[in-house]
Amino acid sequence: MSARADRLAKRLTEAGPDDSAIDALLVTNLTNVEYLTGFTGTNGACLVSGERRVFLTDFRYAERAAGIEGWEVEIVSGQWLEGLASRLRGRTGFEDDHVTVRTANLLREAAAEAELIEAGGQVERLRRVKDADEIERIAAAAAMTDELYGLLIERGMVGQTEAEVDGWLTGWMRDQGAEPSFPPIVASGINGASPHAEPGPREIGPGELVTVDMGVKLDGYCSDCTRTLATGPESRLDPLAREIYEVTLRANEAGLGAVKAGAIGSQVDEVARTVIRDAGYGDNFGHGLGHGVGLEIHEAPRLGPSSKDELMAGEIVTVEPGIYVSGATGVRIEDLVVVGDRGVDRNLSTVTKALTFV
Amino acid sequence: MSARADRLAKRLTEAGPDDSAIDALLVTNLTNVEYLTGFTGTNGACLVSGERRVFLTDFRYAERAAGIEGWEVEIVSGQWLEGLASRLRGRTGFEDDHVTVRTANLLREAAAEAELIEAGGQVERLRRVKDADEIERIAAAAAMTDELYGLLIERGMVGQTEAEVDGWLTGWMRDQGAEPSFPPIVASGINGASPHAEPGPREIGPGELVTVDMGVKLDGYCSDCTRTLATGPESRLDPLAREIYEVTLRANEAGLGAVKAGAIGSQVDEVARTVIRDAGYGDNFGHGLGHGVGLEIHEAPRLGPSSKDELMAGEIVTVEPGIYVSGATGVRIEDLVVVGDRGVDRNLSTVTKALTFV
Repeated sequence: MSARADRLAKRLTEAGPDDSAIDALLVTNLTNVEYLTGFTGTNGACLVSGERRVFLTDFRYAERAAGIEGWEVEIVSGQWLEGLASRLRGRTGFEDDHVTVRTANLLREAAAEAELIEAGGQVERLRRVKDADEIERIAAAAAMTDELYGLLIERGMVGQTEAEVDGWLTGWMRDQGAEPSFPPIVASGINGASPHAEPGPREIGPGELVTVDMGVKLDGYCSDCTRTLATGPESRLDPLAREIYEVTLRANEAGLGAVKAGAIGSQVDEVARTVIRDAGYGDNFGHGLGHGVGLEIHEAPRLGPSSKDELMAGEIVTVEPGIYVSGATGVRIEDLVVVGDRGVDRNLSTVTKALTFV
Repeated sequence: MSARADRLAKRLTEAGPDDSAIDALLVTNLTNVEYLTGFTGTNGACLVSGERRVFLTDFRYAERAAGIEGWEVEIVSGQWLEGLASRLRGRTGFEDDHVTVRTANLLREAAAEAELIEAGGQVERLRRVKDADEIERIAAAAAMTDELYGLLIERGMVGQTEAEVDGWLTGWMRDQGAEPSFPPIVASGINGASPHAEPGPREIGPGELVTVDMGVKLDGYCSDCTRTLATGPESRLDPLAREIYEVTLRANEAGLGAVKAGAIGSQVDEVARTVIRDAGYGDNFGHGLGHGVGLEIHEAPRLGPSSKDELMAGEIVTVEPGIYVSGATGVRIEDLVVVGDRGVDRNLSTVTKALTFV
């Protein structure tokens, strides 16, 4: 894990505004701290300069911090912010995209020997490309999600409410020692027309589409997968439902085909969006195509109409086109994939995408 | 709920730096937004001026927002921050204790017709004093926690690990349709010496103290209660454990006796702390006496050695002294009480504080 701090230290020469150099970077966002050190707890910070790697926490975590390798550990006694400020020297970057205005003002006042520089996003940039260990953890989280889809398909949903299905999904995750990486979506029938529906009291009936969007957080890492399932009998499913399913699946496959290192987020989005637009549903796909997944369920890069992110090998992103027909129904199909140099290196979502009746 | 916005609007005359007046306040913290409007969702903001109450959200929440009474609802299309900025006029306060440096910079650049003023903490100040509806919700959350203590005492803990007890507690809360208001603490034997112990693989044995600190979140509001229980047989419990239990209980009762409107946070803390200091355990009580509880598990006011907060009738605070003896054991006893004009108006924690063997 100390390789991560080394990579971060190399970025200091251009981490300031207009790519200016800074002497050190203060990392206070706890997810970024976890990425750099492995530390999980409610209070910790990293101070990284060319020469030093200092991890700071308070007395409560003294024992846990002692196990962190490659970092000098300092226990801050007394006021936390003052303790941090007293250790800052020279041009010190801070995470302006996480630190509040008030905290930044307090740090500035208390840091007599430092100039505080806005330098957020540095660790997030490193986090985009996953190392082998991270890929395996995310793959394990995805495999658990796939197993749960298998159980759900066996179990069926007709006669249960969305909230009941949600409760069963969440309970199963917790029984496995995992947590949901976000509250699962179970959107049946007409509710499927909203991309962000919350599971409710609606009872799932026959001949409907049911969009299930879920993932687990396991060993710190998230997974994310969406399948739109159908309830039988097959004869009762609307032709519109079948059509938008087929179009969405083609868009998903087209998007997957466009994922590779060097592609721009907006380009990949456009490839999938074109399929949907050409089928006449351009106005029914109101969100971006995908996003990075890692320690957080949503992280960089983004795949969407305005994204300038250039994909890199080793990133893990979702590809999740959808078609939402207000007052009728909706479909979303989402895979989680590892970006490779010439295309998708590995699709971590193995649940069938053929229209499945449960 | 519109009475809350009216109270907030009255504060505008002195909400700026050095009690200066502002023309409007932009509230973006989602807990504060929920307090003002009842809205729960992942994106929303309030803009309050002398004349207007505007609630802003995006298209996903259009339906939910339509149900909010007493507010003009505006749906922001396109970029959220630009949408907010375009609606700001004159000296506009923002929540500098919640808004990041980067977001504040973006808002300042985009808000051509407004001057952005640091004015955080206004809604938190209102949230301190609970109205009758809030008190009933917190009382209901506390009653559920008390019921769970009753079940735990019947069920016993010997032979189970801390993590197993934690899992059972959390599972029961969820079965009732509630969530833990924070991850429960189950700290047995030597682990009780740490005020912030996390439930672990340690098996709870006979003749030990077990500190259980837990609460639920129900209907949006939190509860918080700690009891240190003992495992039998009584003859095996250490005299030290009995002594620190008795001292902590006296400190808890002394602290409760000092709670009333007009008392200063540091004064109430000192009354309880004196009991512990006089018994020779002054160095073993390393945290503050208590904190406010409401929509969040920790909110204003604070009871602690450095707190200048003056208590007001209708606040709900914890009183939770503890004694922690490193390498041996620990005790904490916490009640949740409503502040009244002449003393505690109502103690919401009804679980017995007599040393209880389970």
